[in-house]
Amino acid sequence: MKHKSFSLQTITPIALAALLSVANIQVMAQTAALPDPASTTVQALGWMQGFPPPPDKQITFDNPVGNVFPRIRWTFSHIRELVPTANVWRGTGAPSPLRAAPVNLDGVRLKVMGTGEELTFAQSLERNYTDGIVVLHKGRIVYEKYFGALTPERPHLAMSVTKSFVGTLAALLAEEGTLQPDAPVTQYLPEMKNTAYGDATVRQVMDMTIGVKYSENYADPKAEVWDYARAGGMMAQGKDYAGPKSFDLFLQGLQKEGEHGQAFAYKTVNAEVLAWLVRRASGKSLAQLMSERIWSRIGAEQDAYFMVDRIGTESGGGGLNTALRDLARFGEMMRNQGRYNGQQVLPKAVFEDIQRGADKAQFAKAGYTTLPGWSYRNMWWVSHNDHGAYMARGIHGQAVYIDPKAQMVIARYASHPIAANGVNDPISLPAYQAVANALMKK
Amino acid sequence: MKHKSFSLQTITPIALAALLSVANIQVMAQTAALPDPASTTVQALGWMQGFPPPPDKQITFDNPVGNVFPRIRWTFSHIRELVPTANVWRGTGAPSPLRAAPVNLDGVRLKVMGTGEELTFAQSLERNYTDGIVVLHKGRIVYEKYFGALTPERPHLAMSVTKSFVGTLAALLAEEGTLQPDAPVTQYLPEMKNTAYGDATVRQVMDMTIGVKYSENYADPKAEVWDYARAGGMMAQGKDYAGPKSFDLFLQGLQKEGEHGQAFAYKTVNAEVLAWLVRRASGKSLAQLMSERIWSRIGAEQDAYFMVDRIGTESGGGGLNTALRDLARFGEMMRNQGRYNGQQVLPKAVFEDIQRGADKAQFAKAGYTTLPGWSYRNMWWVSHNDHGAYMARGIHGQAVYIDPKAQMVIARYASHPIAANGVNDPISLPAYQAVANALMKK
Repeated sequence: MKHKSFSLQTITPIALAALLSVANIQVMAQTAALPDPASTTVQALGWMQGFPPPPDKQITFDNPVGNVFPRIRWTFSHIRELVPTANVWRGTGAPSPLRAAPVNLDGVRLKVMGTGEELTFAQSLERNYTDGIVVLHKGRIVYEKYFGALTPERPHLAMSVTKSFVGTLAALLAEEGTLQPDAPVTQYLPEMKNTAYGDATVRQVMDMTIGVKYSENYADPKAEVWDYARAGGMMAQGKDYAGPKSFDLFLQGLQKEGEHGQAFAYKTVNAEVLAWLVRRASGKSLAQLMSERIWSRIGAEQDAYFMVDRIGTESGGGGLNTALRDLARFGEMMRNQGRYNGQQVLPKAVFEDIQRGADKAQFAKAGYTTLPGWSYRNMWWVSHNDHGAYMARGIHGQAVYIDPKAQMVIARYASHPIAANGVNDPISLPAYQAVANALMKK
Repeated sequence: MKHKSFSLQTITPIALAALLSVANIQVMAQTAALPDPASTTVQALGWMQGFPPPPDKQITFDNPVGNVFPRIRWTFSHIRELVPTANVWRGTGAPSPLRAAPVNLDGVRLKVMGTGEELTFAQSLERNYTDGIVVLHKGRIVYEKYFGALTPERPHLAMSVTKSFVGTLAALLAEEGTLQPDAPVTQYLPEMKNTAYGDATVRQVMDMTIGVKYSENYADPKAEVWDYARAGGMMAQGKDYAGPKSFDLFLQGLQKEGEHGQAFAYKTVNAEVLAWLVRRASGKSLAQLMSERIWSRIGAEQDAYFMVDRIGTESGGGGLNTALRDLARFGEMMRNQGRYNGQQVLPKAVFEDIQRGADKAQFAKAGYTTLPGWSYRNMWWVSHNDHGAYMARGIHGQAVYIDPKAQMVIARYASHPIAANGVNDPISLPAYQAVANALMKK
């Protein structure tokens, strides 16, 4: 993989609203020339420096190229300065301790999936446009680095990692009996009767086996992902915009395509529907529920926040922003099956259900070449490998990677130019596994 | 003062952007019929309840009546859900202790200025549409109440109380020699050469004795206050808006009217110019500087935040939002002349300069009938009464009231229907003084 100097023409346009993961541009992306990571940092390019920044160094929400790489290297650490947000309160307690026990992992070697190229772990981080990474081993921070615009206290856009939070909350409500997985969606959301979801179950939404006409192909300017982003206010609507102006109105326009329950089909709108189900079932906003049930209980050190639409609805598909260490705390709570910070934060059954995963054959139909033998359960990606690893994944490289056997959790934020995990998986997944193996030898 | 049931026609339209104080509608306001406080709470009117809220109960940024009373009773506690914001980080330390030593002040009696009507303190809070109040005596919380949409952890719009933070930071930089009060504004902001500020000094900006064509008369839809609010993105610009789209561009269009240094003239744009001076002189954003020099050092229990314009510039005129207890902590630090939370947070000289006040004769020219003998220094309102009291003031009733003799600090957030302190001063100022007197007898 060669690094050329940056040119807009070589990059897939990626909107701020590209909060979403996608499979179908993997092959395209792997062959594209990528800009040099070191010369596209915020510092190197001088975005948003000075009062005011020079006009050509300003990043604004309404600029059509404002949210395209390399500006996202700044944007992803400054989302709330561009759009309305809802706070996820950490509560008043002290942060839970995260002790440091540094291990120099920089030289850990890995082989890139497919090409066999050898890289060190340190090289892999730069190659994947990492903004920050925390590696926990047995609950201690063995490795922590920040690059570019990210700092320890600053929330970063989690993108589709958001979905795994929504899925976890949904699984919690299911465990508690507040949300019935076998019930029809319309039992909670009668508004969805005449949509693709009119004959779907909650479980089908949780595991994304919904047949719905909705494309997340970023290369297609007519893909529904753009309509979704505009409706939710995650992308500028433009002055003559006449479409829906909130998530709920957009979702009520979704029509069926194919059958439910037949195959895994990754579509962000399912996470938005699930977020709506969670709100309706719990009677609380996503921000409030996450604060009460997770954020205040894991001892997060920073408030988190969600992007919200015009009427204050959080984006459950990709709108969460957290500090990196708090994402690691969440992962560590998952690794310990809910036991963390001196309490059972969530019931053990929630994690057992996620780790069991779902139907591999249904997953295989989606054609993720970098994820052979995986499945998708409660909005988590389950590897079924011999370490029992599972992940939350966001495009551009956001990740929570939980390796129970290695007693390891990796939280990573990144701003990769290509909006598809198929591009960074070939480096990231071997990197995570190499680090796990190195830590197991300690 | 009679309370009629709410009718839009009886209320001056107040935009979200009405972050500003104003003197010239006092008389009008005192004679206007006001809506019943109890029947205009968020709970009574049902704003923003449910997922989604019913269309007629939604509050949105782009709705022309969205930011008019009584919706502001919700809006002022939910600003970040409507507009972009910049975080003022509290740091990682534990909150500074604020011990409670409750005193029942509900029955303290006061006489309304002008009419002589007798009220209890509890009645005065409702009559002034209070959202929350904290009274500190000798550093302990003797009284703390929340009404309506406000809760202890939720930041509330501080409006023009913001200016006093900017003025304090400017006074700090002046004390440290980073910002020269006697220097021309253009020494720091050459961009302002061909504006009203082209021949003004920094000191004239700090004390608001600037001759500039700018009206804050909310009753006049053509007043410049609306242009200012639209430019800063605090008010919807509308689809055909062709004006400036950031604070700095708006400020560069301000023209001179009258002379500088002759009279106090309260105009919010001075606070925006001062905020710009503070950024340029310090090399830091307002949010960063406030976090480093104040918020992280007083042991705030919540992050605060600023509304920002399209290019991330904080509104120094009225965009700050804080939790109420943190506003009280800030006031207590002021009362102790900078000594707080085990350290000298700001130099004592900063407070001595503020408490000395400015020229009363220049202040008198502005005609504030409720503030006889006061002055305005470093964006603080100084009473020169026998208690040495001084205040930060925001329209709709936001206040930090510091009474050194009574060893009392009052922090109050409110959402009064009328955008002018002349309306709530007749109740609030006697209330604060009555509480001070009651506490001094203890």
